[in-house]
Amino acid sequence: MSAKYKVSGMTCGGCVRSVTNAITARDSAATVEVDLPTGVVTVDGDLSEDTVKDAVEGAGFDFGGRAAA
Amino acid sequence: MSAKYKVSGMTCGGCVRSVTNAITARDSAATVEVDLPTGVVTVDGDLSEDTVKDAVEGAGFDFGGRAAA
Repeated sequence: MSAKYKVSGMTCGGCVRSVTNAITARDSAATVEVDLPTGVVTVDGDLSEDTVKDAVEGAGFDFGGRAAA
Repeated sequence: MSAKYKVSGMTCGGCVRSVTNAITARDSAATVEVDLPTGVVTVDGDLSEDTVKDAVEGAGFDFGGRAAA
């Protein structure tokens, strides 16, 4: 299952790594791809939207819900 | 108790927020201060060095141990 979310507040590669790690910490089998310019985070795996939201917000970034696919 | 640690890989305010949140998630009573140019993270609270290391590395940054006080 793949889902795209909007995340704001990421401004550099460190932010990208941080968001990626926060999500994969919830499911090590998940694949996370971040597009920094658009703030779109693509998550491939079994994580619910709520879990992704918790991970993103826990890392200090703003979760903006589903992005257009 | 206050301790200073070296953290590398932080390059912007988003990284600072991320490291700060990762540490305070382990102890909401802790106070975290990050000096971005030097990469020195000051943690005021009861967290052990191992816990801070886990938090920093979990957020995707490199933990460099104690910094000179």
